[in-house]
Amino acid sequence: MLTDKLTKEMLMDAQKVLEGVVRKTPVFHSTYINPDADVYIKCENMQVTGSFKLRGAYFKTASLTDAEAQKGVIACSAGNHAQGVALAAQKKGIPAVICMPESAPMAKVEATKSYGAEVVLVPGVYDDAAAKAVALQKEKGYTFLHPFNDEYVIAGQGTVGMEILEQVKDAEVVLVPIGGGGLISGVAFAIKQYNPNCKVYGVQAAGAPSMQHALEVGKAEALASVSTMADGIAVKQPGDLTFAMCQKYVDGVVTVSEDEIACAILKLIEKHKMIAEGAGAVSVAAAMYNKVDIKGKKVVCVISGGNVDVKVLDRIIDKALQANGRISKLSVMMMDKPGQMTQLLSIIAETGANIFSINHDRIVQEIAVSTCIVDIVAETRNQQHCDEMIAAIEAKGFQVL
Amino acid sequence: MLTDKLTKEMLMDAQKVLEGVVRKTPVFHSTYINPDADVYIKCENMQVTGSFKLRGAYFKTASLTDAEAQKGVIACSAGNHAQGVALAAQKKGIPAVICMPESAPMAKVEATKSYGAEVVLVPGVYDDAAAKAVALQKEKGYTFLHPFNDEYVIAGQGTVGMEILEQVKDAEVVLVPIGGGGLISGVAFAIKQYNPNCKVYGVQAAGAPSMQHALEVGKAEALASVSTMADGIAVKQPGDLTFAMCQKYVDGVVTVSEDEIACAILKLIEKHKMIAEGAGAVSVAAAMYNKVDIKGKKVVCVISGGNVDVKVLDRIIDKALQANGRISKLSVMMMDKPGQMTQLLSIIAETGANIFSINHDRIVQEIAVSTCIVDIVAETRNQQHCDEMIAAIEAKGFQVL
Repeated sequence: MLTDKLTKEMLMDAQKVLEGVVRKTPVFHSTYINPDADVYIKCENMQVTGSFKLRGAYFKTASLTDAEAQKGVIACSAGNHAQGVALAAQKKGIPAVICMPESAPMAKVEATKSYGAEVVLVPGVYDDAAAKAVALQKEKGYTFLHPFNDEYVIAGQGTVGMEILEQVKDAEVVLVPIGGGGLISGVAFAIKQYNPNCKVYGVQAAGAPSMQHALEVGKAEALASVSTMADGIAVKQPGDLTFAMCQKYVDGVVTVSEDEIACAILKLIEKHKMIAEGAGAVSVAAAMYNKVDIKGKKVVCVISGGNVDVKVLDRIIDKALQANGRISKLSVMMMDKPGQMTQLLSIIAETGANIFSINHDRIVQEIAVSTCIVDIVAETRNQQHCDEMIAAIEAKGFQVL
Repeated sequence: MLTDKLTKEMLMDAQKVLEGVVRKTPVFHSTYINPDADVYIKCENMQVTGSFKLRGAYFKTASLTDAEAQKGVIACSAGNHAQGVALAAQKKGIPAVICMPESAPMAKVEATKSYGAEVVLVPGVYDDAAAKAVALQKEKGYTFLHPFNDEYVIAGQGTVGMEILEQVKDAEVVLVPIGGGGLISGVAFAIKQYNPNCKVYGVQAAGAPSMQHALEVGKAEALASVSTMADGIAVKQPGDLTFAMCQKYVDGVVTVSEDEIACAILKLIEKHKMIAEGAGAVSVAAAMYNKVDIKGKKVVCVISGGNVDVKVLDRIIDKALQANGRISKLSVMMMDKPGQMTQLLSIIAETGANIFSINHDRIVQEIAVSTCIVDIVAETRNQQHCDEMIAAIEAKGFQVL
């Protein structure tokens, strides 16, 4: 529900409170994301703690009464909010307890601890950790910090919008990732106060379109399930406040596929030398794949965070390279006789493809004993190059499965 | 040999010429690199083309006479200089030919072509490509652009130093990667003009210490061979000009190991969400591992570039995770009977380690038929956790090889 707590003054207050605590993150012009638009990226992945979450968490913490603050704060999160709250509490000098699902990546648990928070690892999934946080809050009287459905949190995130207004004058379109909706609520509110003609669009993963669904049906109902690599925005249900904010201030919500997200992450790594997490890259994916009409326009993509486990990152890169035809995985059937492998590899070499790995295991294969299957992973320039390689292999009588 | 061509005025001229062409790259404060020092990172990996090389290449190109420019330019490079020259020539509207060794990563070749340069792929290694460039230059009359041994190139790179003076007031130590020496010559010259008390140290890979060696023996002689993952600074011989500049302006040269470079790259990915290439990360490695006395000092690490092939990046991350004890690779010998694997995996699970992969292949193993070897890759928190896991496995009678 909309309240009148959130005002221009509160935004400016948040800016003042956050000065010297959060980084004014850089904006880069990008010629790589969409050739038909003038694209800028606002890099909250370069924020302290690796995401925008510190802004809202710190402003909220700073706004607590002394009595609330002295009780200490509690939050539940598998990732970015955890680190934001932990650092905010450390800077404010108050205790913080963070409930995290046991399945949270070790690196995120360690990072949260490094900011001085007490981490409670809860067996099960996010919902179990949330239940534990509520129970602990009741038992110990901690102050609960909601990750998005809170005016102070929204005002804190809104400072991203204030910086965009200053860093990219006359932006025409701003693309913002949506999970619970805290970031876009703040950014859209800020932008519309000062530059009402600028469009603000939300971007969700196609596997977790909770805000898009809520806006369609007119209420903040929960999705039965969500599934996406963009774990930072895999939220089943928007808040009532963030839903109302989006209804009022957001011009539309679009979705992007998992392959599109992976390709956006790869683009940012290769062309801008930066890591975005899945949630952070959806705005870039929306611009790359023209999910919103941005032709000829000045566009800002907000990259909300960069906290992705390094081992997961490798799998995302692999997915993107495959989607772009830059890695080709082939299974080739051939006669089980000497010379076949040599011939196959020469054909591949002649097409200019570069072999990464060969797997040839005759024991597990359930095929005729006179034939065998070789699995090959090769580097190719693009999909066309990959198709040419396959055609060349087939032209010599091998069967590509 | 030192010339008097390079002056303060030339530096300021370079700054003016480069305005609007290169990015004034961001500087971030880092609390993660060395707890005992006040560390800043100057991010030339965020530069257009992914490295500082555009600065020198563009200023040099802009300084050519009309006659020289009209002939077109030629350069030889496996990576960053190629992209810098290609984009500089494109912006200047003159043709560029870049000789690259055939072994150069496909992504770098494609990037260079994308800036409009004609790429000549030369069979063999870097030296073969360089010979081809010289031959083509003679044959066609192109203007040769040296990657480092040139006053204009050095002045262009020196603008990095000018920005540091402005972005990190009163820096006490600046750490700069050294390959051929162009970047540090320019940076040290700039810093010493305006803040002579600031120390400037060069950092090289231990496997390619050409400038350190040259300063020790007092002449710019070539090393017999170099070997490092930091391909951007794998240079056998400094230039005579850059050698003389280092003799005069640089306070010392230190080296870092391959593991140290990998750990610096991982630190920048995890804590700053940015990609540095090996050459770019040596300055950060020097600060992390106290190669220079920086205790209590205000230090700037120049990250010179971020052009690393994504498939290579994965191997570097893996190396760093192993060096930190965050990935443990074990071979365990056990009896070849039912239940052994289950017992082994329960022991590992109880220590809180997370298994990534198990390889159990009895066919290739040349050991007693009653025993077998299992190869396990597991995620651990740090070296201590890894040691605890091994101790737990051995305590139950398994042999860890």
